[in-house]
Amino acid sequence: MISAQQRQVRVDLGTRSYDILIGPDLLATAGTRIAERLPKARAAIVTDENVAAAHAATLSASLEQAGIEAATITVAPGEKSKNFATLERVVDEVIAAKLERGDVVVALGGGVVGDLAGFVSGIVRRGMKFVQMPTSLLAQVDSSVGGKTGINTQRGKNLVGVFQQPSLVLADTTVLDTLPEREFRAGYAEVAKYGLIDRPDFFAWLEANWRDVFAGGDARTHAIAESCRAKAEVVARDEFEKGDRALLNLGHTFGHAFEAATQYDGSRLVHGEGVAIGMALAHRFSSRLNLCSMDDALRVEAHLRAVGLPISPLEIPGELPGAERMLDFIAQDKKVSRGALTFILTKGIGQSFVARDVPPSEVLSFLQTTLHAEAA
Amino acid sequence: MISAQQRQVRVDLGTRSYDILIGPDLLATAGTRIAERLPKARAAIVTDENVAAAHAATLSASLEQAGIEAATITVAPGEKSKNFATLERVVDEVIAAKLERGDVVVALGGGVVGDLAGFVSGIVRRGMKFVQMPTSLLAQVDSSVGGKTGINTQRGKNLVGVFQQPSLVLADTTVLDTLPEREFRAGYAEVAKYGLIDRPDFFAWLEANWRDVFAGGDARTHAIAESCRAKAEVVARDEFEKGDRALLNLGHTFGHAFEAATQYDGSRLVHGEGVAIGMALAHRFSSRLNLCSMDDALRVEAHLRAVGLPISPLEIPGELPGAERMLDFIAQDKKVSRGALTFILTKGIGQSFVARDVPPSEVLSFLQTTLHAEAA
Repeated sequence: MISAQQRQVRVDLGTRSYDILIGPDLLATAGTRIAERLPKARAAIVTDENVAAAHAATLSASLEQAGIEAATITVAPGEKSKNFATLERVVDEVIAAKLERGDVVVALGGGVVGDLAGFVSGIVRRGMKFVQMPTSLLAQVDSSVGGKTGINTQRGKNLVGVFQQPSLVLADTTVLDTLPEREFRAGYAEVAKYGLIDRPDFFAWLEANWRDVFAGGDARTHAIAESCRAKAEVVARDEFEKGDRALLNLGHTFGHAFEAATQYDGSRLVHGEGVAIGMALAHRFSSRLNLCSMDDALRVEAHLRAVGLPISPLEIPGELPGAERMLDFIAQDKKVSRGALTFILTKGIGQSFVARDVPPSEVLSFLQTTLHAEAA
Repeated sequence: MISAQQRQVRVDLGTRSYDILIGPDLLATAGTRIAERLPKARAAIVTDENVAAAHAATLSASLEQAGIEAATITVAPGEKSKNFATLERVVDEVIAAKLERGDVVVALGGGVVGDLAGFVSGIVRRGMKFVQMPTSLLAQVDSSVGGKTGINTQRGKNLVGVFQQPSLVLADTTVLDTLPEREFRAGYAEVAKYGLIDRPDFFAWLEANWRDVFAGGDARTHAIAESCRAKAEVVARDEFEKGDRALLNLGHTFGHAFEAATQYDGSRLVHGEGVAIGMALAHRFSSRLNLCSMDDALRVEAHLRAVGLPISPLEIPGELPGAERMLDFIAQDKKVSRGALTFILTKGIGQSFVARDVPPSEVLSFLQTTLHAEAA
């Protein structure tokens, strides 16, 4: 069923369980893999203009070969497509294609396409089938696994959506060869994150082998599979984010605040870079609170820096707001629960935990140090 | 906890189980009932302008007395509020009220408000808490129970939504006293439906006691509770409408087609009236197919006629399309599965069943008789 170069990771969610296949050539064989899991389903491929140009023909041919009739729905690339207007248009096109509840929406693209298409599949006819075909590293190791879907509103990102588990995730590692270096590197921040959450051995393996992961081939497939396995385990413990799943936000509370402070301007900061800075800060902050050693914080910074990721807000081009304003961004983040500040902190490499009720005053004084005087 | 005049019906859905309370004075005591189930939750009341004028102050006072802070969000009355634009506005107002995942959206109104507010609660922050306070008979016995929520698109009704179970349903029977007679009667069609699906004794009870149900008091409370119990049992067997739940569509396939054919113009036909005609036709059609006796079909018609409901498309004011066009409306209905026609047919009073693959030719020739030559 899967070749020697491929890996299979099971996401164990009872009746909503599904497989993630990782490896080369999955795009070209997607049709048979979807048909064997969803016999007789028809499909709508949701993709963006860039990905469509590179990969839609390959996927359509593969679906056609397997007897799957498919409509293709294209959206503009970029975060701006995660809005109500695009949601309404894609919903309408899926309905216009006369797809029914047993039919499938296939998301072919990065996180934006996956989040949007997943949300569409979750609400058309109160829930259709859904297959993820992530084409960015970030999407392969993070957003395509776990069932979170949604769009943004003017009041914040991902504030509207549903939990919608896919029937299958096909992560074709070859498509990553054409990603811009900066985008691949940003996605790598999430790979490192899994080591830092609870897999110290994986983090050590990444320190030794990251060049091979960037180069492609089996090390890349291994890193992606290990990341998916890590995420799948957390998601299986806490599908609806009532507790442990918050661990996946390591680096994200700080990271989101910097993304918001830079108006999500990707020329200044992309998500994975924000996460890299956020993870570095989470370890520094933990060290400042005497939870983890400064050695561990420095080890995290050394690795992120080695792969070319930023580790300090001072590396973000342009002006940033002051510490008080940054604290506002953190408090507005959706992970806030009843006014208390929740952070993912750590006792060391691979020993992260959910800290609720972190005093805002501590965060503020840490931010002041970080924004005004930090030397790397 | 509940008074002698009140009934409690449990909807048994594992971790998503909840209670329906039915009886007088539930509006005035809603605050404590919500607070005991959702301690510390804040609330957004979603209602329409008409219901707001009659009941919002009572509910707000009750919530305030119980220490529940509540924002009120008002939409225009009527089916037209079940659209994307209103969805987006209500979503935005809920987010603007800074409600979090553990907070509650309270739907105060009829089916439109319940469907819209339920959908909002299902997608803001990927799912908040939800309480239904249905103020029409139709909503009390049908739409507020079972977790179906959604909006319409130009391509059809309820094509977009989620399954979102409430934490509690409070059906205040006193608020029904102010309903227009025609609306109460239309809601009664759904009450009779439960007898016709699988409760022949309940149907017989309604034949004997329908005047008391219309008059109010304990017979009304009993009829509503029995209806909720009937629906809850079907929903518990098939929460996500994969099989048996289709039984609840008795009368709806024909009924929806007539609603669509009259452009959902409530001055010509309201939903419950369409269901009444649909149930009469489902029994006639079953009799024509030698599935049930003509006596049973006539008994159904006699009861619906006694309470003042229509039983034939010829009673709908204005022109109707011909049989072929009506068949198109039926085929477009969302209960179509892979091109085959699905109907709820019956072997007699309270002996309904799901018939898949009903030949379109049979439906067409039945419609021809019904539309052109039927004598009641």
